[in-house]
Amino acid sequence: MVKALTERKVLLTDCADAQGLIAGITGVCFKHKLNIIKNSEFVDNFQGRFFMRTELEGVFNDDILMEDLQQVLPANNHMSLISARRKRIVILVTKEAHCLGDLLMKNFYGALNVDIAAVVGNYDNLQELTEKFDIPFHHVSHEGLDRHQHEQALLEVIDSYQADYLVLAKFMRILTPEFVERYPNRIINIHHSFLPAFIGANPYRQAWERGVKIIGATAHFVNNCLDEGPIIKQDVIHVDHSYSALEMAKAGRDVEKSVLSRALALVINDQVVVHGNKTIVF
Amino acid sequence: MVKALTERKVLLTDCADAQGLIAGITGVCFKHKLNIIKNSEFVDNFQGRFFMRTELEGVFNDDILMEDLQQVLPANNHMSLISARRKRIVILVTKEAHCLGDLLMKNFYGALNVDIAAVVGNYDNLQELTEKFDIPFHHVSHEGLDRHQHEQALLEVIDSYQADYLVLAKFMRILTPEFVERYPNRIINIHHSFLPAFIGANPYRQAWERGVKIIGATAHFVNNCLDEGPIIKQDVIHVDHSYSALEMAKAGRDVEKSVLSRALALVINDQVVVHGNKTIVF
Amino acid sequence: MVKALTERKVLLTDCADAQGLIAGITGVCFKHKLNIIKNSEFVDNFQGRFFMRTELEGVFNDDILMEDLQQVLPANNHMSLISARRKRIVILVTKEAHCLGDLLMKNFYGALNVDIAAVVGNYDNLQELTEKFDIPFHHVSHEGLDRHQHEQALLEVIDSYQADYLVLAKFMRILTPEFVERYPNRIINIHHSFLPAFIGANPYRQAWERGVKIIGATAHFVNNCLDEGPIIKQDVIHVDHSYSALEMAKAGRDVEKSVLSRALALVINDQVVVHGNKTIVF
Amino acid sequence: MVKALTERKVLLTDCADAQGLIAGITGVCFKHKLNIIKNSEFVDNFQGRFFMRTELEGVFNDDILMEDLQQVLPANNHMSLISARRKRIVILVTKEAHCLGDLLMKNFYGALNVDIAAVVGNYDNLQELTEKFDIPFHHVSHEGLDRHQHEQALLEVIDSYQADYLVLAKFMRILTPEFVERYPNRIINIHHSFLPAFIGANPYRQAWERGVKIIGATAHFVNNCLDEGPIIKQDVIHVDHSYSALEMAKAGRDVEKSVLSRALALVINDQVVVHGNKTIVF
Repeated sequence: MVKALTERKVLLTDCADAQGLIAGITGVCFKHKLNIIKNSEFVDNFQGRFFMRTELEGVFNDDILMEDLQQVLPANNHMSLISARRKRIVILVTKEAHCLGDLLMKNFYGALNVDIAAVVGNYDNLQELTEKFDIPFHHVSHEGLDRHQHEQALLEVIDSYQADYLVLAKFMRILTPEFVERYPNRIINIHHSFLPAFIGANPYRQAWERGVKIIGATAHFVNNCLDEGPIIKQDVIHVDHSYSALEMAKAGRDVEKSVLSRALALVINDQVVVHGNKTIVF
Repeated sequence: MVKALTERKVLLTDCADAQGLIAGITGVCFKHKLNIIKNSEFVDNFQGRFFMRTELEGVFNDDILMEDLQQVLPANNHMSLISARRKRIVILVTKEAHCLGDLLMKNFYGALNVDIAAVVGNYDNLQELTEKFDIPFHHVSHEGLDRHQHEQALLEVIDSYQADYLVLAKFMRILTPEFVERYPNRIINIHHSFLPAFIGANPYRQAWERGVKIIGATAHFVNNCLDEGPIIKQDVIHVDHSYSALEMAKAGRDVEKSVLSRALALVINDQVVVHGNKTIVF
Repeated sequence: MVKALTERKVLLTDCADAQGLIAGITGVCFKHKLNIIKNSEFVDNFQGRFFMRTELEGVFNDDILMEDLQQVLPANNHMSLISARRKRIVILVTKEAHCLGDLLMKNFYGALNVDIAAVVGNYDNLQELTEKFDIPFHHVSHEGLDRHQHEQALLEVIDSYQADYLVLAKFMRILTPEFVERYPNRIINIHHSFLPAFIGANPYRQAWERGVKIIGATAHFVNNCLDEGPIIKQDVIHVDHSYSALEMAKAGRDVEKSVLSRALALVINDQVVVHGNKTIVF
Repeated sequence: MVKALTERKVLLTDCADAQGLIAGITGVCFKHKLNIIKNSEFVDNFQGRFFMRTELEGVFNDDILMEDLQQVLPANNHMSLISARRKRIVILVTKEAHCLGDLLMKNFYGALNVDIAAVVGNYDNLQELTEKFDIPFHHVSHEGLDRHQHEQALLEVIDSYQADYLVLAKFMRILTPEFVERYPNRIINIHHSFLPAFIGANPYRQAWERGVKIIGATAHFVNNCLDEGPIIKQDVIHVDHSYSALEMAKAGRDVEKSVLSRALALVINDQVVVHGNKTIVF
């Protein structure tokens, strides 16, 4: 006789707010003999919307569980039951090594619970670094191609890896809506400023010119507007008058890589729910 | 006919961990038609202990609610149902004004949801400041009294105010176990160091001598051991070689008052559960 | 015979960069038997500009000292020799108490080395608080007056106090260029956002709508453009999805008052040099 | 005719305080036609000691410069004139990869201005990682050796590299005074706690047991007492009740590597002066 397998899954609930939701959902889980490892909820009172993340352990019968849950939830709910498996990512880069290097290194010593399926660059200078870690690197140059052609070439490579998420680790090309729609809320970008300050190009130069005393970085999902998607994580460091624009950029790199890897850790751990142009981070 | 009053209460649960606790508790709340405003739980896997804070709104029948909850909980549970009313505090001081001043001022403009019933000092130099805010000040000098006599004198004043919490806002006298037992987990102290570094007297001097690059402050409940109770909140600031011990103390005052008032806000909002020598801060 | 008085003064130098400036200036100070307590310099290599702050102690003969310094400096230099005396400020407020309250309280217990000459409000609700501290409050309502008339009424009160600096402690009126020119680089404002993000009205609402994970405050000198003067100090706090716009504003108040009082401390200690639209903070 | 070479050097002065020191030293530099790029000074008023760091550019005649400087300095001064060349380090490790990995990666993409001459480990599990970056790895096991023998074996390898600094990147062996004396103020250690809290073994376990709300890391020079040398850099992160000791350790690793690499950057840039058991960080 086969012993049923104990698994861990995350149940994400997103529905209209109503009385009894927590009792209803956790009651169903209890009926299914699932142990709740961790439960977090948030009600957006402004929009009357209920969100819950429930980390479950036990023997899952997914179909019956989802059916039972539908009985206790309002209509038009979004539920997802996500296996706590390692996620697959493809990393896109241009020339800068610090974010890619940090992800490769953290992954190497087991601090990022992710499979890096491949790295794709529109330049080839990060190939050597990537291959040190036995990860395939694809050089997909944009030269001689229009934006559409370049994205087609990228997608041919990327799609083949069936990644859960694309990570733009200082990928300095603007993606078209067509590209973004292929990976809805599945593209994570690191922007080298504390958004919404200094949107667009050369934010450290802008920051230096404005004489700010703090610089930052923002990790966000990419949607169709430049620098406009739901923010996952932000952090800052203090600077002073003695920093040149170049030194701000150098200091900023440490924040960028730290914010990107922490944002990625939240996402792959199924702690981030997108809600309109915002995120709920459980 | 009288319309039943809608109230807000916080239900704190502390019991042995078991399956179905969230479902059970929230199910009872639902049955009582209580709306869950906010629910947070924590399981201490190391000790197999379950903690939950449930913010409820509705018409309460306390006795029946507690009875019903007992049906779904393991034996030896601790439950408390706390009305979301303003707490009363008595503040104890010695000579330094910054923590007291901050509490008085924040309370004046409505940023601390608390009633300051009285201020008690073993010196009288903070009387003028206290009375600016129309709060009674009691000068209970320790001079000529032994520790026991002084504490008796203090308790005579303090007990009369029936405070929920005593706040030691730089009260520089060590309390005896007898005193502390009168207010178990109800005395909040601000210690002028990042505990457990620099326990005891003159921590800024110690910090300066050690050449640390960071100094901090710790708000904690007082138990019978000096500087040893459950920590509620800590924070730090960066310093450098140019700070004298005096300048460290001056810079530290800002952290002290900020940590104390944030810790107090958590406590009076019923967000802090004491668990052995630690706190769970929901 | 009269013994000459030992004083402390700060010498601020701002001139074209050249070789030998530190040697030249400190050599003159040495010749004058002035002891250098602290010396800080900064060269803006981008603009070829030299800045130095020299804290001096001794018996000053100001005229001869300045003459001697001119011998070692390039033409078109700006030098100022500032007595280390307590500065006088006038605080302007509208309705919010937290920044004013913090300044009043810190000043009361000696943590701000400043004379608060008066508080001026376009509402009268902060009169009671101000007068607790025996500081004159002037209610100069804007009602029924056009902007020019209101500013005239304000200036009549303010000018009479001969303040070194005006501190806008949540003064919610936009000042005209004519007003600002009366106090060049002498008006300090606290802006309730991390500039340049969320310029203009209702920044916490904007921050909430954008779903940011960090909010901040900016203290800056006021020049002719709204929210555009040289930044003195900035700080931030982390927030999350659970904050409403109102809760962000509440949390932001603590940063606002902290940033304003730290910026003011730098300014009155003659540590801040304005250089174009930026500051050098020694 | 040979054109003299323009170089950059750092002049570090450490002497009894006296009037005219800045003027004297910078006057000599001016006489030598050396341009001062950056000048920072600090007076320890408690001990009457003067420290200055002067970054110079020009054509150096070291012997005459040092002779001339002796003319303007009190007796018993310590002066060093350090060429702004890349420093050589040897990294010692045990089993943990995060600090080593961070140094290797940052160095690879040019964010650490240092030559990593070799990595020495008492286990061999970090050999593969080190060699990815074409840096020699030496496995010097402690097994079967007493402390003295092991240190001899280490020194044989280390000494051959003529390193400026040894970096203990989670090297979990206690060094003897004999070893430490070979590299006075030249061994940099990362301690996995906010010293002086949690001295000794298993600090994260200690931190968890104490229920602290902040954990940290400390980079310091190693002297003869365990965890006792001059502190170079410290930083912290906030934790809460939900962290197990293991999760604290995991979160702490990010602080450890960040603190170590920032401390190393300060040291190799000749910004750190050791003064008794403290550092002055210019």
